[in-house]
Amino acid sequence: MVFSELFAPSRTIMTPGPVEVDPRVLRAMSTPILGQFDPAFTNIMNQVMEMLRQVFQTKNRWAFPIDGTSRSGNEAILCSIIEPGDRVFVPIYGRFGHLLVEICERYGAEVHSMECPWGEVFDPQMVIDEMNKVKPKIVAIVHGETSTGRMQPLKEIGKACREGDILLVVDAVASIGGVQIKTDEWYIDGMIGGTQKCLSVPSGMAPITYNERIENILSARKKVERGIATEEDLQFSRSRQAIASNYFDLSMLQDYWGPRRLNHHTEATSMIYALHEGLRLILAEGLEQRFERHKLHEKALIAGLEAMGLSLFGDPKHKLPCVTCVEIPKDVDGESVRNMLLEQFSIEIASSFGPLHGKIWRIGTMGYSCRKENILSVLGALEAVLIRHGVNVHRGAALQAALDVYNVERLADFSFKKLS
Amino acid sequence: MVFSELFAPSRTIMTPGPVEVDPRVLRAMSTPILGQFDPAFTNIMNQVMEMLRQVFQTKNRWAFPIDGTSRSGNEAILCSIIEPGDRVFVPIYGRFGHLLVEICERYGAEVHSMECPWGEVFDPQMVIDEMNKVKPKIVAIVHGETSTGRMQPLKEIGKACREGDILLVVDAVASIGGVQIKTDEWYIDGMIGGTQKCLSVPSGMAPITYNERIENILSARKKVERGIATEEDLQFSRSRQAIASNYFDLSMLQDYWGPRRLNHHTEATSMIYALHEGLRLILAEGLEQRFERHKLHEKALIAGLEAMGLSLFGDPKHKLPCVTCVEIPKDVDGESVRNMLLEQFSIEIASSFGPLHGKIWRIGTMGYSCRKENILSVLGALEAVLIRHGVNVHRGAALQAALDVYNVERLADFSFKKLS
Repeated sequence: MVFSELFAPSRTIMTPGPVEVDPRVLRAMSTPILGQFDPAFTNIMNQVMEMLRQVFQTKNRWAFPIDGTSRSGNEAILCSIIEPGDRVFVPIYGRFGHLLVEICERYGAEVHSMECPWGEVFDPQMVIDEMNKVKPKIVAIVHGETSTGRMQPLKEIGKACREGDILLVVDAVASIGGVQIKTDEWYIDGMIGGTQKCLSVPSGMAPITYNERIENILSARKKVERGIATEEDLQFSRSRQAIASNYFDLSMLQDYWGPRRLNHHTEATSMIYALHEGLRLILAEGLEQRFERHKLHEKALIAGLEAMGLSLFGDPKHKLPCVTCVEIPKDVDGESVRNMLLEQFSIEIASSFGPLHGKIWRIGTMGYSCRKENILSVLGALEAVLIRHGVNVHRGAALQAALDVYNVERLADFSFKKLS
Repeated sequence: MVFSELFAPSRTIMTPGPVEVDPRVLRAMSTPILGQFDPAFTNIMNQVMEMLRQVFQTKNRWAFPIDGTSRSGNEAILCSIIEPGDRVFVPIYGRFGHLLVEICERYGAEVHSMECPWGEVFDPQMVIDEMNKVKPKIVAIVHGETSTGRMQPLKEIGKACREGDILLVVDAVASIGGVQIKTDEWYIDGMIGGTQKCLSVPSGMAPITYNERIENILSARKKVERGIATEEDLQFSRSRQAIASNYFDLSMLQDYWGPRRLNHHTEATSMIYALHEGLRLILAEGLEQRFERHKLHEKALIAGLEAMGLSLFGDPKHKLPCVTCVEIPKDVDGESVRNMLLEQFSIEIASSFGPLHGKIWRIGTMGYSCRKENILSVLGALEAVLIRHGVNVHRGAALQAALDVYNVERLADFSFKKLS
């Protein structure tokens, strides 16, 4: 069997990840390899840490990527702080809340959860009241739930956690870099971001950050690996149980990312290059401007979908700006529409999971994919495909509505510039 | 703070990893993103599986990468088959044997180990005798130990494991793609490879393969994730304890890499591109030819080092061809030599760990770094740096000795071609 050269057709990717990547980030990945302890490389690692702090809006000492896909970040923080029998409280409002439960259970936590209907979020007070009953060591919650396109307000929950000396761990995989999220101001102790969504870096790394409250737990569970431990390391007495995973042991990862540079794994060189370039572009664009850009294109997309006659799914007050959920019209085969979009137009949109599978499509507007031409392409193509599927849409209206949004925004932007 | 554009100086990397990467692999990484369930992408994933089978020399159904650095592959296989209290036997002959112990202990195994002096390997019969006493469920052992540059013969151990119904798990991170290793013929049940060494693909993935004996354990521990499980999945009753890690749960990874394509993580797109291109280049070169290439450059390197007057470390009968360990001459500061090589010549060689730190240098000849010009560069530079450090070397001899090896081999190669 002879294997063909790698070939990837050009796609317009409008899913909630993985999304398109800026050509400058792709180019950065083809930079030649450096040794992991080469000062030129550790300098790049340090810059990545500093840029991550800025993107996470934190003064935390620790902000670095886990070498794995997004959920590896969840597992790294949770398994590093959970000891068997610890009580964890998980409010669930979609698939990724269930994932947090899964991970906590596997590491021996006693998990208490509550669930609201998919498409809604929790009134923060309801979470706080339940939390005060459960009295957990940890609250783990999703910030932006891609499966339902909702976003949970966190600041009040964070404040209540801090007052009750509870650790708050937040899965911000889908929201970081596209939506406002303030680690320190919202009292978040541990936060996990994703690369392949609003950061627009290929999948394969999970940037995390955590504060001293979590670092104190790590210090008490610290282990230096057999085979590289010094006499002093071997004499260190842990006051708490060692962390169950070697790969995800944050006490060891700290020693690798910190000044001791103690070998753990071999850092994923090319992915670090990509993350470095991706973060640099985000900071060059500016966080606030980036959030505004995500809102603008969301607005145009929604205007187009509604003008076409489609209905959005979920509570609009708590919509995640970078994921728009659309109800699949009655008697339409959602997968057939998705397939035709891919095969005829080379455009990808997403379905959803569990109870929402076959009921909604999800259109992502994340990072580099979140551009005017992509919004216009997906609206035009979707109209054509729906007509082919016998759906009675308002022909031609979607693109006009989206163009109107861009036109008004452009004028507004222009007047603003003239005024300032 | 303004962040500079990514800059990586050009290096000649002669360490046991991460090593230089073929420009064609680097270029593959800048291919635009595809969605993880795009048929164009799942086709690439399937090709990667098939190419991995060929490189692992196995007919196993399962051969795919874990999305993490090399040790994530060790942890994935071990945590997926170890249940608390299981007995695991680990013969240790260097740092990475200790790592296997670490991982097994963390997942609750009762670990029995034996250790031989670093620089040696075990007589297989000694391992078999001890194994028959310990009666473990699993034997976990390193094939190529980068920390000491040794290679453990495995076939007899594999045969004895199979006869005793013991699972054999082999860490071939440093040897795969550079040295002969036959998964099926040597009765290896689970094997882990590394990308950033002889495969010459950037760090960040750990290709693994395992057979039906391991798959049977996974089936008994199978879990489908909350939030995506069907009614049927929920009714499945596990006959054994679920796997402790979510990220490393091979029963779930199988469902993602297999025809069900059940979402687990988002596959690391660009790393898969790199792995695809890297494997394709390996198969195009030919496994046997590639092993011969590694032996040729090892021979030239050794000839040069010995002609210079340096001594090699470790038992020569069991030397790992792709790592050459050199004794640091008396009264020489090994780190000062390494620093001068990097700063003046932009060449990187490695130190070692634990008891060998400060005693030996390790020179890697792996994958794309294993080229004539690199061998000649490192020999020439090392001679100059040692002279600067006051070492009495045989001036000029190293490069002549290496050139002689290449000359003879070229003539031999020429006569062979004429004869055939």
